[in-house]
Amino acid sequence: MKLPFQTTRRVEFRDTDAAGIVHFSMFFAYMEEAEHAMLRELGLNVILKMRDQTISWPRVAASCDFRKPARFEDELVVTVRVKRIGEKSVAYGFEFQLDESLIAEGSLTAACCRVDGDDAPHAVAIPSEIADKLKVAGSD
Amino acid sequence: MKLPFQTTRRVEFRDTDAAGIVHFSMFFAYMEEAEHAMLRELGLNVILKMRDQTISWPRVAASCDFRKPARFEDELVVTVRVKRIGEKSVAYGFEFQLDESLIAEGSLTAACCRVDGDDAPHAVAIPSEIADKLKVAGSD
Amino acid sequence: MKLPFQTTRRVEFRDTDAAGIVHFSMFFAYMEEAEHAMLRELGLNVILKMRDQTISWPRVAASCDFRKPARFEDELVVTVRVKRIGEKSVAYGFEFQLDESLIAEGSLTAACCRVDGDDAPHAVAIPSEIADKLKVAGSD
Amino acid sequence: MKLPFQTTRRVEFRDTDAAGIVHFSMFFAYMEEAEHAMLRELGLNVILKMRDQTISWPRVAASCDFRKPARFEDELVVTVRVKRIGEKSVAYGFEFQLDESLIAEGSLTAACCRVDGDDAPHAVAIPSEIADKLKVAGSD
Repeated sequence: MKLPFQTTRRVEFRDTDAAGIVHFSMFFAYMEEAEHAMLRELGLNVILKMRDQTISWPRVAASCDFRKPARFEDELVVTVRVKRIGEKSVAYGFEFQLDESLIAEGSLTAACCRVDGDDAPHAVAIPSEIADKLKVAGSD
Repeated sequence: MKLPFQTTRRVEFRDTDAAGIVHFSMFFAYMEEAEHAMLRELGLNVILKMRDQTISWPRVAASCDFRKPARFEDELVVTVRVKRIGEKSVAYGFEFQLDESLIAEGSLTAACCRVDGDDAPHAVAIPSEIADKLKVAGSD
Repeated sequence: MKLPFQTTRRVEFRDTDAAGIVHFSMFFAYMEEAEHAMLRELGLNVILKMRDQTISWPRVAASCDFRKPARFEDELVVTVRVKRIGEKSVAYGFEFQLDESLIAEGSLTAACCRVDGDDAPHAVAIPSEIADKLKVAGSD
Repeated sequence: MKLPFQTTRRVEFRDTDAAGIVHFSMFFAYMEEAEHAMLRELGLNVILKMRDQTISWPRVAASCDFRKPARFEDELVVTVRVKRIGEKSVAYGFEFQLDESLIAEGSLTAACCRVDGDDAPHAVAIPSEIADKLKVAGSD
């Protein structure tokens, strides 16, 4: 995987609002889509069945700074970086570029959790098979 | 429950698009919200644990005709009618009114299904406890 | 453009609901995305500034029949067909396939409208430059 | 208006994802809905026509910390506080409670902008009629 990981996202009409621009909440959906695209590229998935447990990544924090608006049919370049790998969590950083200009910057922190059955998610140490792959992505 | 069942829905900013009006796909979300409000009023729920099975209602068909646009902060009156109760499915009709003018009309058909575990949903006869309540709502 | 027009859509996590499948309202968003992809391929756009007027396509009707559920990361093949070109409206048909199996079928009817300023959209005859391109797409 | 401003939001089915919980991006939509509800209560609106200009509030920053998940039909109590009124921007703080337990905390910073025509939004000083009302809300 070439580092940092990049993907593109075209703005769909449904993503815009009556102000004529992408609704700010959509940038969080775009972040997650880019995160998932990177995980796929690493051979991972946001929901992984490992041995007899299901591992997923509920979010513990999310933030975004908005500099310029995006509009219908704009093609955004989204850069994802693994900023920090903790024992039980991972933090990603995101940059959104339009025509080579930075329009937004965000971050997402996710906890590694067992999510089996109807119980509440339970934080666990990131399995080494997963941590090793995330480290590769975080090495740039 | 007063028949026909009615509820209101204020248009949120996120529901609009760059054309300045409610995105057409949102009317389907509004229908479902109104359906669920009616089910709650009937003492039902779109996901019901009965005896040892979980009953839910995957949609088999949905349609909507749009007459006039709705805008941010409009307060829509949504009327729900039980149009037909089959052995394994139910069909609802919806009317959307704004300032006493009909702006859209829709329908939704849902199949009564067991949805336990990871298996695909499996259509079953509507349990009589549920069918009886739906019949009450459909008696207007 | 190869006919019929086809595009793919990967199911994003945000598209799913607590039943573990794609929320039915999302299929309408998918239809619109596929419609817009086809319009782009034809050199058109859902919002076109022509001479001194802005042309857009408010929806007058939408429907979908659902046969099988779609899940996170499924890659759907969406086929768009121009079913009918009227004087002031166009109707599209959509097929959703997953692993070569038809999982849903839908339709969308849109009215050709002037949408300038704050006035309500006003239906107009489809400009011939647009109608000619749609006819090409509808010739299969 | 009773301070701090509070409103409730029932979790709709569409707000959930395949993990069975409210998708994290929805909390940002909930924040905006609560902000707009407070503005309405103050006699304001997120899009205001004043004299010959249109004032709106593009977001410059948004963040949320998530402590516990919310599920379908949960009724969340959302508290909105005006945290800071700058010359050209306002910052809001949000708390989400479920059964009297804090499940998430967020913030939103919005810039006061003229948004007339097709030009990019242009930051302006908050008109005194608006600032005065926001100060009332921020006095708790």
